[in-house]
Amino acid sequence: MSVYSAVDVIALKRDGGVLSDEEISWVLDAYERGEVAEEQMSALLMAIYFNGLNPEELDTWTDRMIESGERLDLRGLSRPTVDKHSTGGVGDKLSLIVAPLVAACGAAVPQLSGRGLGHTGGTLDKLESIPGWRASLTNDEIRVQLETVGAVICAAGSGLAPVDRKLYALRDVTGTVESISLISSSIMSKKIAEGIEALVLDVKVGRGAFIKDVERARELATTMVGLGRAHGVKTVAQLTSMDAPLGQAVGNALEVTEAVDVLRGGGPSDVRELTIALATLMTSLVGLDASPGDRLDDGSAYDVYERMIRAQGGDPEAAMPLAALREDVLAPDDGVVTSIDALAVGVTAWRLGAGRARKEDPVSAGAGVTCLVREGDRVAKGQPLFTLHADDEAHLGIGRVTIAHAVSLGSAPRAETSLLLDLIEE
Amino acid sequence: MSVYSAVDVIALKRDGGVLSDEEISWVLDAYERGEVAEEQMSALLMAIYFNGLNPEELDTWTDRMIESGERLDLRGLSRPTVDKHSTGGVGDKLSLIVAPLVAACGAAVPQLSGRGLGHTGGTLDKLESIPGWRASLTNDEIRVQLETVGAVICAAGSGLAPVDRKLYALRDVTGTVESISLISSSIMSKKIAEGIEALVLDVKVGRGAFIKDVERARELATTMVGLGRAHGVKTVAQLTSMDAPLGQAVGNALEVTEAVDVLRGGGPSDVRELTIALATLMTSLVGLDASPGDRLDDGSAYDVYERMIRAQGGDPEAAMPLAALREDVLAPDDGVVTSIDALAVGVTAWRLGAGRARKEDPVSAGAGVTCLVREGDRVAKGQPLFTLHADDEAHLGIGRVTIAHAVSLGSAPRAETSLLLDLIEE
Repeated sequence: MSVYSAVDVIALKRDGGVLSDEEISWVLDAYERGEVAEEQMSALLMAIYFNGLNPEELDTWTDRMIESGERLDLRGLSRPTVDKHSTGGVGDKLSLIVAPLVAACGAAVPQLSGRGLGHTGGTLDKLESIPGWRASLTNDEIRVQLETVGAVICAAGSGLAPVDRKLYALRDVTGTVESISLISSSIMSKKIAEGIEALVLDVKVGRGAFIKDVERARELATTMVGLGRAHGVKTVAQLTSMDAPLGQAVGNALEVTEAVDVLRGGGPSDVRELTIALATLMTSLVGLDASPGDRLDDGSAYDVYERMIRAQGGDPEAAMPLAALREDVLAPDDGVVTSIDALAVGVTAWRLGAGRARKEDPVSAGAGVTCLVREGDRVAKGQPLFTLHADDEAHLGIGRVTIAHAVSLGSAPRAETSLLLDLIEE
Repeated sequence: MSVYSAVDVIALKRDGGVLSDEEISWVLDAYERGEVAEEQMSALLMAIYFNGLNPEELDTWTDRMIESGERLDLRGLSRPTVDKHSTGGVGDKLSLIVAPLVAACGAAVPQLSGRGLGHTGGTLDKLESIPGWRASLTNDEIRVQLETVGAVICAAGSGLAPVDRKLYALRDVTGTVESISLISSSIMSKKIAEGIEALVLDVKVGRGAFIKDVERARELATTMVGLGRAHGVKTVAQLTSMDAPLGQAVGNALEVTEAVDVLRGGGPSDVRELTIALATLMTSLVGLDASPGDRLDDGSAYDVYERMIRAQGGDPEAAMPLAALREDVLAPDDGVVTSIDALAVGVTAWRLGAGRARKEDPVSAGAGVTCLVREGDRVAKGQPLFTLHADDEAHLGIGRVTIAHAVSLGSAPRAETSLLLDLIEE
């Protein structure tokens, strides 16, 4: 019999106490072995939701999640290693652009990614719309590709922080996702296990993000930056606005096409702006004196992208899948676009088939939403605001309903706000 | 698919929201059917631990627990029906005395009881030390015995509030026992399902009770009184002190013997005092003008006790089981007894064999502790303070350790405090 008891650990955290290193190690190990039951862990997670983990507890909790699995060993690469992580936004295709761009600037970028759930898309889902592209690589393949191409976007293997995988599945069904401590340790355990030197966090705030409030976003950012630095990873966090969708394209193949536009020096200005901001942070963290904008304009970023896609079996020149049905959503009136609700657009793309409600659901490559107007645009009644893309009438019908109130029209635009809200460096 | 989702209900309560009647009904029904998983319910219980249930939510929650099972139908009895419930104390054998006493005063008392867990004993465990006595009765047998004898102490059948049974087992392993809302609804759902007209709650406060603090006890009492009244049961709560054990005997057969002493007009003065106080509350709630003290002294209470035990197959005249080993614990010094720690005595009786750690464990009939001194007594070095009773040396050895610091000796007694702390009538 163990000297620890699950009920005692739960009650200690419930009553606002501090868990010792030994208690945290025991409870996570015993949970992984199945000796602490799911219903006990969910009660502990809810107690952590309310009472949090202090910095020492969070450090230990994160350590144990990392140590539950393997770590990538990136020592010996000829380039400095840096990654970025986004907390998830609507139309956020930045990973697809930033990884090859930063590689073109001289760093190695190992983007171990996940699939989408709910209204924000997943990087792997987007890339899987490219014919032939495969998400799964061995650790050796990752190392070789980092050395030869400089950028990898692939699935995080089950070997990385396996306890986090089990905990995340539990949090998802027990209302314990939205805890700063648990979000931080989940994200950072996987990123630290990547073995990177530096990390830029893109913390999304606003209607289309899971954090609506700047203060809370700042708290999450500060916590994650602290965790990264405590584990020897140079970490900064950029708070960015996610009230309106990023760029015009929301959906898997649609976003790949837009990402390629940006990689070729074009594309929507907001996507380009944010790409350059994050790439600049990433390169400067590892001491590279780079001009990311130039690498977009001179074709070198696109060149890395092409090689990255080919290295994983994809054909970057292939025609992207299109949805069978397209339909425009028209402006109901004359007016100025005062807001485009990222959440409504994200939910619409999801319901059109681009996203999944459960992790075993398939996603459509071609489905999604194209945003034809931006905030501040003047529109005339009957002018197209969005194009909906769906594989069948059933999906299209749901999308028609969810997009209905995504645009607000007024007489004058709101004051323009910056996409870049705040930079958290420690 | 249901219109409700467990995650939404959990998140609503987690965020301090109010659950609708429909949400509460759905979540409890779906939990009973196994559609809401144990890990989801434990997360909800922890959220309730932190954010509580408001009076309307608690009412509905309790209703649904009652309606999940059967209710006793006590209409048509010739006597008014009244019960008492104690939140559990060390040496608390009052049910054994109060039920026949109040029946002797003219009421019908259906005491549907449980077994003990941890350091406080269970009424059924105590009575089962009487040779032949059986705890299980059918609903028809309960009615007949209430009509002919006036008092029944028996096991609460599995038909009463079955959801509470399932919830309690879950709370026990997930650190969610200690919630005012959940304690109240658990106790009151079973008592209301008894179909009684009136109820007296004995809410224990102090070192030997699970509530240590008077303010919290008052909150629990007020909540339970409100729930009883909302369900048409005249309910009052008496807060009583549980710093020191009640009476001298702690253990199953030992407590039966002491209860019989009190039923015959003798016994320790604190047990007699509290018995009369509770019996007076019970009889006055149902409009009986009774003198409980006289019913102890004139033998009529003992007469009902005898008939109650015989009606359930027990022999009230039989010799009570004794433990094989007895050992006195001696005063280490001269002095005045400033305190006797009820928790230490309760834990000792439990570890000597009188109680159980898990609900499937057996209990010893004869094991326990006899307290030979009271607070305020002057003792001489070497004088016996306690007698320990155990079935074997292994149990005795543990009891020797746990009893070691149960008595504090000083130079002067503490100010005497009353057993009766506060009466909560609404």
